[in-house]
Amino acid sequence: MTVQITEVRITPVAVKDPPLLNSVGVHEPYALRAVIELYAGPDLLGLSEAYGDDPSLERLRRVAPALIGLDPFDVHELHRRTATALGEAPEDMPTDMIGPPSASKTLAATFAAFEVACLDLQGRAIGRPVSDLLGGAVRAAVPFSGYLFYRWAGHPGHPDDGPEALTPDSIVDQAKDLVARYGFGSLKLKGGVRPPDEEIAAIRALRAAFPDHPLRLDPNTNWTVPTSIHVGTELAGVLEYLEDPTAGLEGMAEVARAVPMPLATNMCVTTFEDLPAAIEQRSVQVVLSDHHFWGGLRESVILAGICRTFDLGLSMHSNTHLGISLAAMTQLAAAIPNLTYACDTHIPWQVEDVIEPGVLRFVDGSVPVPTTPGLGVTLDRDALARLHEQYLTCGVRRRDDIGYMRSIVPSWSGIRPMF
Amino acid sequence: MTVQITEVRITPVAVKDPPLLNSVGVHEPYALRAVIELYAGPDLLGLSEAYGDDPSLERLRRVAPALIGLDPFDVHELHRRTATALGEAPEDMPTDMIGPPSASKTLAATFAAFEVACLDLQGRAIGRPVSDLLGGAVRAAVPFSGYLFYRWAGHPGHPDDGPEALTPDSIVDQAKDLVARYGFGSLKLKGGVRPPDEEIAAIRALRAAFPDHPLRLDPNTNWTVPTSIHVGTELAGVLEYLEDPTAGLEGMAEVARAVPMPLATNMCVTTFEDLPAAIEQRSVQVVLSDHHFWGGLRESVILAGICRTFDLGLSMHSNTHLGISLAAMTQLAAAIPNLTYACDTHIPWQVEDVIEPGVLRFVDGSVPVPTTPGLGVTLDRDALARLHEQYLTCGVRRRDDIGYMRSIVPSWSGIRPMF
Repeated sequence: MTVQITEVRITPVAVKDPPLLNSVGVHEPYALRAVIELYAGPDLLGLSEAYGDDPSLERLRRVAPALIGLDPFDVHELHRRTATALGEAPEDMPTDMIGPPSASKTLAATFAAFEVACLDLQGRAIGRPVSDLLGGAVRAAVPFSGYLFYRWAGHPGHPDDGPEALTPDSIVDQAKDLVARYGFGSLKLKGGVRPPDEEIAAIRALRAAFPDHPLRLDPNTNWTVPTSIHVGTELAGVLEYLEDPTAGLEGMAEVARAVPMPLATNMCVTTFEDLPAAIEQRSVQVVLSDHHFWGGLRESVILAGICRTFDLGLSMHSNTHLGISLAAMTQLAAAIPNLTYACDTHIPWQVEDVIEPGVLRFVDGSVPVPTTPGLGVTLDRDALARLHEQYLTCGVRRRDDIGYMRSIVPSWSGIRPMF
Repeated sequence: MTVQITEVRITPVAVKDPPLLNSVGVHEPYALRAVIELYAGPDLLGLSEAYGDDPSLERLRRVAPALIGLDPFDVHELHRRTATALGEAPEDMPTDMIGPPSASKTLAATFAAFEVACLDLQGRAIGRPVSDLLGGAVRAAVPFSGYLFYRWAGHPGHPDDGPEALTPDSIVDQAKDLVARYGFGSLKLKGGVRPPDEEIAAIRALRAAFPDHPLRLDPNTNWTVPTSIHVGTELAGVLEYLEDPTAGLEGMAEVARAVPMPLATNMCVTTFEDLPAAIEQRSVQVVLSDHHFWGGLRESVILAGICRTFDLGLSMHSNTHLGISLAAMTQLAAAIPNLTYACDTHIPWQVEDVIEPGVLRFVDGSVPVPTTPGLGVTLDRDALARLHEQYLTCGVRRRDDIGYMRSIVPSWSGIRPMF
């Protein structure tokens, strides 16, 4: 069977994003994504979704011409072509949440964007879901965690789009709403926003309201080591895991020795190069995988094998994403036996999407794994055109939570650790 | 596309084996293999080749009935069914060359036997070589190393089948013969047979005769730590790597600290469970993968990812095998970017095979990777019947190099380390 890529389309889109607060600032009114279409002839299409900021887009476009004629089954050749097109220079990453930029990170992220589309193409070509290309689904539905954010009611100058959440009670209200609508069986609070004792109070309020829900807290390294140990000690027996309380492998190792719960990360272990030192120092106990920056779905399977081998827990990280990425995350999570924690997702916060509705849905907090070929999702071309138009007019070209916050709060430093 | 396993056939075969000497004794006149056929309907067949000793056969047969109805794309389900059928008890392994038996090893080996056949089935179902199921071939031909053995001219009571090789000069003659016939670009001597200084002399004689061939020496843990350090020091600058000089992670680490060349292993790191301690202690620098006991082709890809991540070299081990396994080894090696050493193979020592000839051949020491569907090889049914008949009459039912040597040399202990 011959399959060759004949056309590559990369379409940046902007989707409305609420004013979600995090350790460095606040989400801008629009979040950017790139929709990738790989055609193998007129009727065979593989989809992917990637970062849509300017540097990421430029890299995708630099690689795209090299993909014409590629066999989508040959992802090793895809990797070679991507590496050749990108060269060796470290370049901007779409978020500093995954550590300093490096050439290997930009290669991994750019390759991943196309690899997912190649696996979608493979699955469509052979009539198999992507999970079958990864060894087969070990679960019929993938559990996700309800992602709670401190937030404003609306962006300055825009209409309010939801209730403000800045207190423990309002976080509980937000959780009740998400659980009611999606059925989430576990909850994660994006922390590092309010003073630590307020966030401890929020977690305790969640525990009181949801006695049986596993709970997570993620301050995105906005705490010093002593603050991290204080919070971890206070929340002993309450948190399923504490995520990236402080920066760096050494700091994380120090916290890990002092607190009773596992430490999870998507910030100090974000590449394969980070793993040896993290394992040697016992800095983390749970890795939050993310195929977008770990080099795609097959590399994520290798990461899972490493976690299994070194007795590390495995969960899944999420940045703002749409339905194509949700499908990829679901197919991947379905095929990893040792992905035993509910995955993160930003999906409840995005009201716009580029896929035809109905395929991906939440049932009791889990997404049933599509069993149709490939990722299982289809582009909604009207939505794609509309969200691309929104991209053209929205003015946002790279994510800048710090700069946006400074435009509202001029004294904002965004320098971590704040607490 | 629906594919379901409808029939499982397991056929033990015996092939003539020369009197090759190793650290525990000598190869018996017949070596055992199991040929596995997985049918998905009458016209779709997946092949594999596995250990053919009684305990391995019994395990394969115990699992076989559970495979009816299995989707060969669902190797995770294959793993569950295999684990369920086998239970938790540690059981005999076909060779003590891969360390003490354990439940996880017997599960990995039994699963691997069927997994390879499932991948052959997958490839045949979709019209793709197995290398494409593993990410794509990164090389068109896989280099193998010429495997040199001390040997007798013939088995007692059998006709001689080759020149005796017990001296440095005769090992060089054997190497010249293998290089002339196969074009091998690197050479490995199975050591631990003659006194160490004789083996040092043999390696030096090989270096003189083959100035540019990478050379390896593998005494299968038949040396003490001081002997290992003595040999490693004497052969500084001569060996590409020294393989399993001594037993255990601690001993290997002590040798590794004292000798200049990398240490390779297929004896002290034979399961994923062995890796953390081996890495922590820096016991080995090169892992010799073997899909037969590492849990199949996909698990071998994960092993390769671990080696890449932890800066370990990766080579490939071989036990006595036939063409189906050679095809599997070739497809796997083709798809692993960081398998940078020539692989081991026993193929020159087997004059009988179960596959139709012509597909697999050595060109300049390398096997061109089949690009036809699946593994790319076809059963020779006449040969299968003949070698099964030979199995029925040969009397060998499990490999016992020690016992066979004792039947010839009653004082033989087979206890390592001998030197």
